[in-house]
Amino acid sequence: MAMKQVACSAIKAVANSGSSSVLTRQLHVSPGSKKIVGVFYKANEYFTKNPNFVGCVEGALGLRQWLESQGHQYIVTDDKDGPDCELDKHIPDLHVLISTPFHPAYVTAERIKKAKNLQLLLTAGIGSDHVDLKAAAEAGLTVAEVTGSNVVSVAEDELMRILILVRNFLPGHHQVISGDWNVAGIAYRAYDLEGKTVGTIGAGRIGKLLLQRLKPFNCNLLYHDRLKMDPELEKQTGAKFEEDLDAMLPKCDIIVVNMPLTEKTRGMFDKHRIAKLKKGVLIVNNARGAIMDTQAVADACSSGHIAGYSGDVWFPQPAPKDHPWRYMPNQAMTPHISGTTIDAQLRYAAGVKDMLERYFKGEEFPVQHYIVKEGELAPQYR
Amino acid sequence: MAMKQVACSAIKAVANSGSSSVLTRQLHVSPGSKKIVGVFYKANEYFTKNPNFVGCVEGALGLRQWLESQGHQYIVTDDKDGPDCELDKHIPDLHVLISTPFHPAYVTAERIKKAKNLQLLLTAGIGSDHVDLKAAAEAGLTVAEVTGSNVVSVAEDELMRILILVRNFLPGHHQVISGDWNVAGIAYRAYDLEGKTVGTIGAGRIGKLLLQRLKPFNCNLLYHDRLKMDPELEKQTGAKFEEDLDAMLPKCDIIVVNMPLTEKTRGMFDKHRIAKLKKGVLIVNNARGAIMDTQAVADACSSGHIAGYSGDVWFPQPAPKDHPWRYMPNQAMTPHISGTTIDAQLRYAAGVKDMLERYFKGEEFPVQHYIVKEGELAPQYR
Repeated sequence: MAMKQVACSAIKAVANSGSSSVLTRQLHVSPGSKKIVGVFYKANEYFTKNPNFVGCVEGALGLRQWLESQGHQYIVTDDKDGPDCELDKHIPDLHVLISTPFHPAYVTAERIKKAKNLQLLLTAGIGSDHVDLKAAAEAGLTVAEVTGSNVVSVAEDELMRILILVRNFLPGHHQVISGDWNVAGIAYRAYDLEGKTVGTIGAGRIGKLLLQRLKPFNCNLLYHDRLKMDPELEKQTGAKFEEDLDAMLPKCDIIVVNMPLTEKTRGMFDKHRIAKLKKGVLIVNNARGAIMDTQAVADACSSGHIAGYSGDVWFPQPAPKDHPWRYMPNQAMTPHISGTTIDAQLRYAAGVKDMLERYFKGEEFPVQHYIVKEGELAPQYR
Repeated sequence: MAMKQVACSAIKAVANSGSSSVLTRQLHVSPGSKKIVGVFYKANEYFTKNPNFVGCVEGALGLRQWLESQGHQYIVTDDKDGPDCELDKHIPDLHVLISTPFHPAYVTAERIKKAKNLQLLLTAGIGSDHVDLKAAAEAGLTVAEVTGSNVVSVAEDELMRILILVRNFLPGHHQVISGDWNVAGIAYRAYDLEGKTVGTIGAGRIGKLLLQRLKPFNCNLLYHDRLKMDPELEKQTGAKFEEDLDAMLPKCDIIVVNMPLTEKTRGMFDKHRIAKLKKGVLIVNNARGAIMDTQAVADACSSGHIAGYSGDVWFPQPAPKDHPWRYMPNQAMTPHISGTTIDAQLRYAAGVKDMLERYFKGEEFPVQHYIVKEGELAPQYR
């Protein structure tokens, strides 16, 4: 695409955001060289195709020269699972682990126990559920992510997926590439988005951006969250607050999942809850795969109770070849991609650099980036 | 989907629109039984899957009982091309031909010459370029379409296609269904829509709806048309008028084609014009396939000059199995579908019924529906 230069300026914008403050964290002022490990997806032949492709192993978030020039050690790998993986070799002596939701390094209690030097876990992106947050808190660690870095990316992607499902895009495209032409086979279940009821579970940063983008489509917009939105934004989007989730869900033609994976939300869409949804409901989930009961979703797509399911999140990731969501009918799935556009990569790379700079100087991070702050969990994860 | 009931009320809304007026057209007052022929796509097994599926041969726009109860003859077919096709059998004595852009009955000068009783050509949908308008005008015929019936449907679909191309959706989905997982292979050319320059050629009904839906995405919006938009709408969308098309095009990351096919626009995207576009441009064309030089588009997709091309319009339709757009890289094509969602079908079926009622009574149609009015071409087709 012709738009590389647009994204470049994002680095500066994000790097300059957030509060700067004085030394407060003993943990951060331990001097000397640090061992930093980054776990990213590997690009191989794709790396050289785009100079802004920083989010992969080869791109290493664009931090190598900067880190090494300051005497730090910087190991980058995609080898994160199984016995003798590269990540496990560095667990005993690393100080900082940078990981992403797209190719998650599962930071278990066992790994945390072995990581005697570990101080800081940084998520390049949003969503740190691949870390055992309870174990991290008990060990007094800090877990932080680049809040806001890819919320626009994800909200855009959700709206795309809503349209792909409502308008029944994929069967038409598959006809084209297989030499067919059968308009009826698409049209009998293709609809306009206009006039339909769309409910978002969660109206945080991403949910709000989605509602704003949905506004001109003249839908009936609903949202469920712990708290009501700012009245101004409620007025702007026309979205109605639904305090009781299970009262909202059966009203929805389209449900969008926009909440973090926590012990409360894990598996919340089980077969019982799905059975209470409208027959023919469409679901978009770019939040986390484990919020769904995998088999219950596959069964409901097969029965037609769910008429379409689209998302980019799975459990585990990478999704195994036999994951049932690959083969269920009426799915519009992709690998975990929505938050790792080139524009998003440049923003979260800038955000990670900013936090590392503050860490080296012993400064606070922007407050909204903390998931666990020196052993204390952020409220939404408690 | 669970939303059938929403669309039903559309019939009444559209049937009641437009002006009603007294007898003015001699052509329309010839009394007695009329022979009406409808050419639609065939649904086969899909017809029974949705009670609102009226746009197919079997659904016959829901007009059969009404027409036959008034003594009219109503023939419906999908057999429109080649020697001895069903349509040609009825050409000599039909009074009204109803056709659609989705499965176009090509009304050539030759057919018009043979159609001695023909008075009225109705397009169920928008876009009557499958009719030789010059020949229809010379024969003193009336050509009318259901202006507005599916403009929302098409604008929604265009925004979906913009997102599919910008975010590089399809390669990710193809990985899923073929058992792969390679985030890098998608991410190296996936972008956010935010901040990009989108230009629409044509800011008529569809173009305006698209600009309104693009507004919250924070793009740089441009439009080219014969006339500037209403200043209020320009302010609301933030879109900038570009008087000179060839000055606008090289500024665009994404180009959307939103103008009718006329002798002026036929083949306007030839290899010379394409060569002047930004390298890596994305093009969405739900207008008409013949606005493009077919081979020039395929060549530019192969070379990478066009980084993505999506649309639902082809020439001819149905697209032959060897149409080069089926096999060119980075295409997100479907059969002609965007304007024939279930919601749109109900609206254009209502609009056709309304015009037939007026025709039987010798009343005027809503003025915006005329393409040729008793031999006189509408201004945009002159």
